[in-house]
Amino acid sequence: MNQTEHHTSAPHIAIEPWAISEPEFNPSQAALHETLFTLGNGQIGVRGAHDEGDIWAGTAQNDVFMNGFYESEPIVYPESAYGFAKANQFIVRVPNATGITFKIDGVAFNPNVGELTEYSRRMDFQTGVLTREYVWTAESGQQVRVRSERLVSFSHMAVVAVRYAVTPLNFTGEITLISSISNLPRAVKAGDDPRVGASLGGLLNYVAFKSSDNFSAFTHRTHHSDLEVVSSAMHATAPASTSHDEQQARFVFDHIAEVGQTISIVKFAAYISSQSVSKDLMVDAAHSALSAAHAIGFDGLVAEQTTYLADFWRNANVEIGGDVSLQQGMHFSQFHLLQSAGRDGKTNIAAKGVTGAGYDGHYFWDTEIYVLPFFLHTRPEIARKLLEYRASTLDAARTRAREMAHDKGALYPWRTITGPECSSYFPAGTAQYHINADIAYAIRQYTDVTGDTSFLLEQGAEVVFETARIWPALGQFDANGQFGIYTVTGPDEYTALVNNNLFTNAMARHHMQFAVNIVAWLSKDHPATLESLREKIGLTSEEIAVWQDAAAHMKLPYDAERGLHAQDDAFFDKPVWDFANAPKDKYPLLLHYHPLVIYRHQVCKQPDVVLALLLLGHEFNNEDKKRDYDYYEAITTHDSSLSSCIFSIMAADVGYTEKAYDYFMQTARLDLDNLHHNTQHGVHAAALAGSWMSVVYGFAGMRSFGGHAKFSPFLPAQWTHYQFVIRIKKRLLQVRVEAERAVYTLLEGDALKITHKGMEIEVVAEQDCVMTL
Amino acid sequence: MNQTEHHTSAPHIAIEPWAISEPEFNPSQAALHETLFTLGNGQIGVRGAHDEGDIWAGTAQNDVFMNGFYESEPIVYPESAYGFAKANQFIVRVPNATGITFKIDGVAFNPNVGELTEYSRRMDFQTGVLTREYVWTAESGQQVRVRSERLVSFSHMAVVAVRYAVTPLNFTGEITLISSISNLPRAVKAGDDPRVGASLGGLLNYVAFKSSDNFSAFTHRTHHSDLEVVSSAMHATAPASTSHDEQQARFVFDHIAEVGQTISIVKFAAYISSQSVSKDLMVDAAHSALSAAHAIGFDGLVAEQTTYLADFWRNANVEIGGDVSLQQGMHFSQFHLLQSAGRDGKTNIAAKGVTGAGYDGHYFWDTEIYVLPFFLHTRPEIARKLLEYRASTLDAARTRAREMAHDKGALYPWRTITGPECSSYFPAGTAQYHINADIAYAIRQYTDVTGDTSFLLEQGAEVVFETARIWPALGQFDANGQFGIYTVTGPDEYTALVNNNLFTNAMARHHMQFAVNIVAWLSKDHPATLESLREKIGLTSEEIAVWQDAAAHMKLPYDAERGLHAQDDAFFDKPVWDFANAPKDKYPLLLHYHPLVIYRHQVCKQPDVVLALLLLGHEFNNEDKKRDYDYYEAITTHDSSLSSCIFSIMAADVGYTEKAYDYFMQTARLDLDNLHHNTQHGVHAAALAGSWMSVVYGFAGMRSFGGHAKFSPFLPAQWTHYQFVIRIKKRLLQVRVEAERAVYTLLEGDALKITHKGMEIEVVAEQDCVMTL
Repeated sequence: MNQTEHHTSAPHIAIEPWAISEPEFNPSQAALHETLFTLGNGQIGVRGAHDEGDIWAGTAQNDVFMNGFYESEPIVYPESAYGFAKANQFIVRVPNATGITFKIDGVAFNPNVGELTEYSRRMDFQTGVLTREYVWTAESGQQVRVRSERLVSFSHMAVVAVRYAVTPLNFTGEITLISSISNLPRAVKAGDDPRVGASLGGLLNYVAFKSSDNFSAFTHRTHHSDLEVVSSAMHATAPASTSHDEQQARFVFDHIAEVGQTISIVKFAAYISSQSVSKDLMVDAAHSALSAAHAIGFDGLVAEQTTYLADFWRNANVEIGGDVSLQQGMHFSQFHLLQSAGRDGKTNIAAKGVTGAGYDGHYFWDTEIYVLPFFLHTRPEIARKLLEYRASTLDAARTRAREMAHDKGALYPWRTITGPECSSYFPAGTAQYHINADIAYAIRQYTDVTGDTSFLLEQGAEVVFETARIWPALGQFDANGQFGIYTVTGPDEYTALVNNNLFTNAMARHHMQFAVNIVAWLSKDHPATLESLREKIGLTSEEIAVWQDAAAHMKLPYDAERGLHAQDDAFFDKPVWDFANAPKDKYPLLLHYHPLVIYRHQVCKQPDVVLALLLLGHEFNNEDKKRDYDYYEAITTHDSSLSSCIFSIMAADVGYTEKAYDYFMQTARLDLDNLHHNTQHGVHAAALAGSWMSVVYGFAGMRSFGGHAKFSPFLPAQWTHYQFVIRIKKRLLQVRVEAERAVYTLLEGDALKITHKGMEIEVVAEQDCVMTL
Repeated sequence: MNQTEHHTSAPHIAIEPWAISEPEFNPSQAALHETLFTLGNGQIGVRGAHDEGDIWAGTAQNDVFMNGFYESEPIVYPESAYGFAKANQFIVRVPNATGITFKIDGVAFNPNVGELTEYSRRMDFQTGVLTREYVWTAESGQQVRVRSERLVSFSHMAVVAVRYAVTPLNFTGEITLISSISNLPRAVKAGDDPRVGASLGGLLNYVAFKSSDNFSAFTHRTHHSDLEVVSSAMHATAPASTSHDEQQARFVFDHIAEVGQTISIVKFAAYISSQSVSKDLMVDAAHSALSAAHAIGFDGLVAEQTTYLADFWRNANVEIGGDVSLQQGMHFSQFHLLQSAGRDGKTNIAAKGVTGAGYDGHYFWDTEIYVLPFFLHTRPEIARKLLEYRASTLDAARTRAREMAHDKGALYPWRTITGPECSSYFPAGTAQYHINADIAYAIRQYTDVTGDTSFLLEQGAEVVFETARIWPALGQFDANGQFGIYTVTGPDEYTALVNNNLFTNAMARHHMQFAVNIVAWLSKDHPATLESLREKIGLTSEEIAVWQDAAAHMKLPYDAERGLHAQDDAFFDKPVWDFANAPKDKYPLLLHYHPLVIYRHQVCKQPDVVLALLLLGHEFNNEDKKRDYDYYEAITTHDSSLSSCIFSIMAADVGYTEKAYDYFMQTARLDLDNLHHNTQHGVHAAALAGSWMSVVYGFAGMRSFGGHAKFSPFLPAQWTHYQFVIRIKKRLLQVRVEAERAVYTLLEGDALKITHKGMEIEVVAEQDCVMTL
């Protein structure tokens, strides 16, 4: 609501529940739609650029990404200091192996000459296929119908498939289809906006090209990070001719087609990175992947994809009755989340998923605090993989802790790809120490909600202990015996370097308590594991006692007179931002005011106290929650895409159902309506997940803290009903909320105790549990 | 005392009161000695490299600087934000027009072959001449004595003069002298140390070369800042031949010399920059300057220089009885201060004077708070020029204020050359808002001590008003009615972005009170001036009332229980740095700890509260001062060269005479003994002035706040006496302190009332005023 027109208007997407489609090609929205129409599988992301490439006007980011495939570069500071992050990692494009274009009688397709009609493009959330059609009339008057279909396979993680068909409508002549793999440069300009990713202009270095029969594979290498990628292709039928140089291979298919005769090719492309396969085996791995895809065929891949997605929706679908636009936003969000999540234990969810290079493809706390709940309750095996990723970078976090003068423990980076700190502005980066507590919180949630303790035993406990060690080093017991934590930044990036940030302190308290509880549990149930862990990391009983003590006496700043939690010790001292006289065109503030101006005021970019009220809601009473909500809502600009969903949930929590709905409207179609004016750089993964949370945590009031699901649902007045499923403790529970009642149905698993509006009930198989609202 | 061996050991300089000399050439100390042996006149600085240039091993910075002659470059931030300083200005070398070398019988001088004996070099503080001698035995056995003298004229500001003489000692043969002007590249590497200047490797662009008769002049231009410099030369006798390309001109003098016959040339070089002379007149200006120097001759220039310096010492000399080493340090400091100060109203005093490119040649608050007192009390006309420089950049400060969201007023930059903010790390840059108050304080001191109100009327009042306008915008009245100032950084750079920094608040109070007082004075004595100023800057009575109110209710954080001023609201909350377990090799902390680690603790790089106690000493009582001193001394590392001198003065103030002496020892020879291990990058101008302040403000206890000189002298036990002169209210007062008495003597002007140890006395002409200590 504080957003103003920036440079890109809202996309033109037809409203329907299970797909997005564009009824026309609009160059001014090309970059934006490329983001929306991105296909991915958590490992590969193919932006929705056109098969024929840059010849389409406005095509800005004809990019293919692999999750976590990065280049690295030293960070050069105009004024450096000890301990500043030394090198950046940033996602780089891999070669585009999906391209196909055509000629008719030797004349190359060009959408900018002749006439383009009957254009449509559609991405289907149930088949996972992106379909595009148009009729092109060349200057010669020759007319063809073109249809292409694309998918990025969920069952063959290396594979992208394209079916491309051309039908001459008013002539008989030569149809030449040209398929390619291209590693082409692109100019990218940098600006002042810190949210845009670093340069993507650089090319990968050529290493090798291998071609045999119907298989061709490039190997390219990054300049600094020593990563290699194989981009390869195999066609359903072998091309008539193949040619290549170091950056591009072309596969030519010639046909004489009669009027009405459809000429088509099917292309399978495979990507293998040296991050998952050793360099000498990459080409073989690509060949295997392509051979398998070739054997299944395009229709077979579509069938697999449809099956995969049917299963996904069965476990995840949120149904919204009475608003197709929001239903579409919800499905879009869920589909893109599925596409975004790395699931190999070595990759994670970038701020932009696999849809763009915004925020350099970095992983943030967004994963643990915003995105993980969705997977935890729909695809817990993916949630576990996301946590395994963090565990896999524990050594890097230990190294960072040493750089930050901690002689023990681990400090996770604010932003990274493979583990090292990549934040180059520490007041809103490394200073956000709460990342450690966020990860511990996620580990606890995973363990409690799934009931799976194996992750905790195998990796989680070590992560929790090592990260907990940082807290005592960041503070001390004050004169009143309270433990304080100094010079940190909380989630709200409009305030930096403060003492006793409430969110940080509350989360640190939870973190240390959790660590102490794990020790007790291990000591009782797995003493050998505890002993070996103690030995491995040198954990002492004194340390554990300090955790207990610091947690027990953690300072949470509170203004007793007003009954308000303070965001930090000094927050209430500062003047409140002059909202009354703030020009509308000065939002988001970060693009119009120096950080010093913003930091000097009571003004929040996003929830901080309010987020603590959600995550640790059981630690706060309802009166405080409501007062805190009222106070902080009035001073929050929601300049972060992480804001509206939390305010939606907490508005519901404190009883503001209309506000809850309004905020939900800000997040449910955030990318579809380009509300933050930067979706061209990629989707906002955390906000996508926020849409899901707004319904499940917000409208349905679910909390699963400790592994017990509590609900407190209401139905927004605008809807007829809504319905969703959640996984908890190996059960699959369906929740349907109608005007006057909630219906709980156990779809899988044993009887489950839940709480409905404060009343504990047991849901058993084959029997709807109907409760009044 | 917290310093450890870094990479450069202490220089080998002979101890004598009025000169520095090196008894041998030591390549490992060449860069360091180049700094110490720099000659300058506030406009030109010629580092003490050898006439023959880089052929001397270890010659790293064979540089000539012009004060304020800069290149500019965009500042590239790895993560940028609104309002960050956009471009850096950094001092760049101008061509070296001083070079002279020689050949004997066609063999070029090379100190690295053959043998070098009887080497000596000496810089004389009374003549201002740098004299160097050596005997060189070539591989052929031919032996020559070489003697060169160099000066940078104080009376001809554009002129550098060199006399170079070669005497064959054991042969008769051809002596070829080659004089040059060179614009040669130099590789410079950047590191992590923020104190080292930006790249100096770049060459200036060639514009033109003009040669006529005995005059040659290059014009070169910077790449981005559009500045031009003429570097020119004229010899006492015309060269036999001249040749040049775009970067170098060579002037050759051939002689056949007999054994014992001295062959010499005199070279006059002149520098003119487009910052002071319009581009089309620069070559003419250089020609004029050189013609004048040529007419006077080298000996004439030496005589002028000696006269100039005699006058300087008469007005400035601090005599220390009983320690030649400290006497030398004091004279070195005073001499280099004189050499450092720009005096044209367009230039100022760089952190490194004109001796190096450290800190990019930027001007800081060092001028107003550290260096100005010296000039104020010895050469007030230079003090005024330094303030005129600030007034000349008022428009840039207004622009900066707008960038920082102030719709009126002016915010001076933390570091700059011509006015724009060049600090690229705002927590220790732009956040130091106290710069505004520092400038106002200096203006008040100048006005009070000189009695000259014309600067205030003509420029100063506008500066004071415009800068005062920022304070109300940085804070608000709190619930207790106290005015608080938020999110600023005080002088101590080991703490950043705090609320109610005591130094800032106290200085802001003084600033606003001063502004209110000026209004009252103008209103009474110069109503027309006030009216036109009001109109020019739109000053309202409401604003003035706010200044008065905010000043009257300024919050100064104070812990009543302990009787201690807090450096800021939260300072005492934080843990004290663990000094007991701090490894000695971890100092200075800034090179070994991330800022977050440092900021999190009670640890000071330099005085902050303690500096307020000095500058505004009359506002604090003695008990508080002593407690504050004790407390902050214990947590200060003195990692800044701005630290020891203030602690010396305040130790004296609170009665710790031995500590005062110890700190004085840390500052009096800071550069001569290379205590901070970075004098190779240039002298520490503020510390040089700190030496003077330590004696005058410290040992003699002088305070001249309000224009009335108070003394409270003591004699350090190690000394027989000390003596200095100060100018105040157009008088010249000599102060001599001996074991048991102080002698005040009026050297110039009318009778003067001063205070000696709380007793007001009147010093009259021709009558020593002898007081017991």
